Amino acid sequence: MTEYSYRVPDFHCLTPDDEIERRINLLQTELKNHEASGVLLFYPVDIFYFSGSMQAGCLFVPDAGEPVYMVLRDLDRAAAESPLKNIASLKSLSEAPGCIDRFSGAGIDVMGLELDVTPVNMFKRIKDLWPDVEFFDASPIIMKLRSVKSDYEIRAMKTAGETCRQIYDEIPEMLGRDLTEIELAGKITEKAYALGHQNYLRMRSFDGEMYTWHVISGESGGVLSRLDAPFSGYGLSPAFPMGASRKVIRKNEPVLIDFGICINGYQVDLTRMFSIGRPSDRIMDSYDALVEIEQAMLKKLLPGIASRDLFQAAISAAESTGYMDAFLGPAGKKVKFAGHGVGLEINEPPFISPGRDEVLRENMTVALELKMVFPGLGAAGLENTVRVSAGGPEKLTTASETFLII
Amino acid sequence: MTEYSYRVPDFHCLTPDDEIERRINLLQTELKNHEASGVLLFYPVDIFYFSGSMQAGCLFVPDAGEPVYMVLRDLDRAAAESPLKNIASLKSLSEAPGCIDRFSGAGIDVMGLELDVTPVNMFKRIKDLWPDVEFFDASPIIMKLRSVKSDYEIRAMKTAGETCRQIYDEIPEMLGRDLTEIELAGKITEKAYALGHQNYLRMRSFDGEMYTWHVISGESGGVLSRLDAPFSGYGLSPAFPMGASRKVIRKNEPVLIDFGICINGYQVDLTRMFSIGRPSDRIMDSYDALVEIEQAMLKKLLPGIASRDLFQAAISAAESTGYMDAFLGPAGKKVKFAGHGVGLEINEPPFISPGRDEVLRENMTVALELKMVFPGLGAAGLENTVRVSAGGPEKLTTASETFLII
Repeated sequence: MTEYSYRVPDFHCLTPDDEIERRINLLQTELKNHEASGVLLFYPVDIFYFSGSMQAGCLFVPDAGEPVYMVLRDLDRAAAESPLKNIASLKSLSEAPGCIDRFSGAGIDVMGLELDVTPVNMFKRIKDLWPDVEFFDASPIIMKLRSVKSDYEIRAMKTAGETCRQIYDEIPEMLGRDLTEIELAGKITEKAYALGHQNYLRMRSFDGEMYTWHVISGESGGVLSRLDAPFSGYGLSPAFPMGASRKVIRKNEPVLIDFGICINGYQVDLTRMFSIGRPSDRIMDSYDALVEIEQAMLKKLLPGIASRDLFQAAISAAESTGYMDAFLGPAGKKVKFAGHGVGLEINEPPFISPGRDEVLRENMTVALELKMVFPGLGAAGLENTVRVSAGGPEKLTTASETFLII
Repeated sequence: MTEYSYRVPDFHCLTPDDEIERRINLLQTELKNHEASGVLLFYPVDIFYFSGSMQAGCLFVPDAGEPVYMVLRDLDRAAAESPLKNIASLKSLSEAPGCIDRFSGAGIDVMGLELDVTPVNMFKRIKDLWPDVEFFDASPIIMKLRSVKSDYEIRAMKTAGETCRQIYDEIPEMLGRDLTEIELAGKITEKAYALGHQNYLRMRSFDGEMYTWHVISGESGGVLSRLDAPFSGYGLSPAFPMGASRKVIRKNEPVLIDFGICINGYQVDLTRMFSIGRPSDRIMDSYDALVEIEQAMLKKLLPGIASRDLFQAAISAAESTGYMDAFLGPAGKKVKFAGHGVGLEINEPPFISPGRDEVLRENMTVALELKMVFPGLGAAGLENTVRVSAGGPEKLTTASETFLII
């Protein structure tokens, strides 16, 4: 019997050591500012961000000194994937307090947790293990750090954007008559898998569900559902009430494809339009209006602008096109955002929303999510993921923006 | 502009009215036994189970009388999908206490929540809205009710099982030389989508991630990761470290396909084996051992058996085959279960585990998850979803169990 061990395969890309070091340093600065002894992370995406690995267990990051990565199932793999120095095996969470003590002798007074996602029962267990520790919600700190991307992350997102282009280039060949929405989604998915797309998009929410088969044709584009989105489509059943359905794609219907791509954990979000035969003038004109609205937003999209002001730029542009009725959803059911941050998750800050004071900063990455909704008729959409930069916004999603009529 | 409204499309299947009524009645009996005023559900799967609809918002089920389904985004759709009588629109959660009071005058003293999945920040908000209410964890009650399936649910799972058979029948044609694992997963996924498969499998866990592209070849079958599973495969990157990877499937390698199928929200779980050319004798023999182990479990699988005893039957059978070293994972890294309940989620009770007192009951549905792991060489697996019945266990997954060598 061969002994178990783990070797990173050639086709895996590891997070560079200095990238992890930089992230830990920034987190430790924040922890000192908050007078916290450390954070204990359980959420897989956060563990990956600060360790380069996503094995089961938890990651303790003290306010100074080396983090401790505690691994429940595969220590070998964690050690092969992460540049962190202190990696230990845990049999169960109850060993974590002792393990942290062994590695970083200093006592813990105040510890951050991801209270936005940690369930109540889990929190109870954590409190029982550290009865004398004061806990606080560290998720705002984590999400603030994650919202500004490094050059490494921007490159990762550009790779995802380039993969999108390769996939979207082939959609006209896939789109044939008598296909259902979900059949077209299947064809796109097959191509995306072959290019290394991780079909599991991540959404930071206990009740949110993210997916990539958002292929919406004709009347489906006027259908709402549980998603906080301008429209949702029928979906496959009331048990998955959003995205592609068994509806047949017909001639002259707008076909909206909002298919986020994820490569090596990094996502980009984009929407493009297709049809078999020319859709109605209203759909085509409204798409032109979306191009104008995006232009107006891109003009304002510089470091220093507040989210609310960028949202207002979208609204003003929509009003001047005459399509405000349809923009961001049907009247009375509009969503309150025109974009969202994107990276390791699809719903990161900043949120381009009227209620948000957040200020955009250099190297934030934002999906401008612009949709027109006409109940009974369909939807038009244009979405790009953009890097915020003093030199002007840079689109990371490079697929052709032509409304492609075959 | 057409006014927004929702009509259920022909291709959607609604939960029957009497099915919802029966579930609510059973829940209310449990609530009375627990002396609770009601439960307030936020988790989409639970809302769907008790309402037939999965719109954003929450569902209040009192210990007697009519439930109140409060919907944040699309009231029309909720009303079209659910047979419940009291369905109301919420602008925000803060309106929920007033809404419940309006519909069901009786005061609330003790209210159940899904504390296994509700995040701490969300719970804080709920406590602020109902400052005088005592809360308890209702998730054990909910999961107990959901673990026993109705005839309607069994039929839904049989449909999923039959869809599996159609998909697995075509895998030999898909499996060609020089394909990567993820390319084969893409081909299977395309076929599955076309048959109505909902690719989003649900796992009740804040940090669990479930997916369907578990296509594992050769050495990948000896690789562990974050999953609580006998093996996990390489996955696409350290940011998605499980399931199919870019590894090329080679001649004479075992190819294990563990691809759960979900139709109308109901899942079945199954594993089958394929290869191009004959794999090593050890792999082939160990598969025969799995067939024996399954037979031994099926003999014991009757209403009344305790989970721990069914687990022990698997261990005893594995020992008698001589393959205990490889069964359930490599030595020192074995998982502590040989099966799990399945239904609307992939990890429902009962868990076939040595630490479990749960007793199996008529119409529970269990996936017997039997795997052999040989580090460096690969894995063999056999998994079926089975209905527990006094007349003897019934397999819901009917795909051929032959180790298919092409």
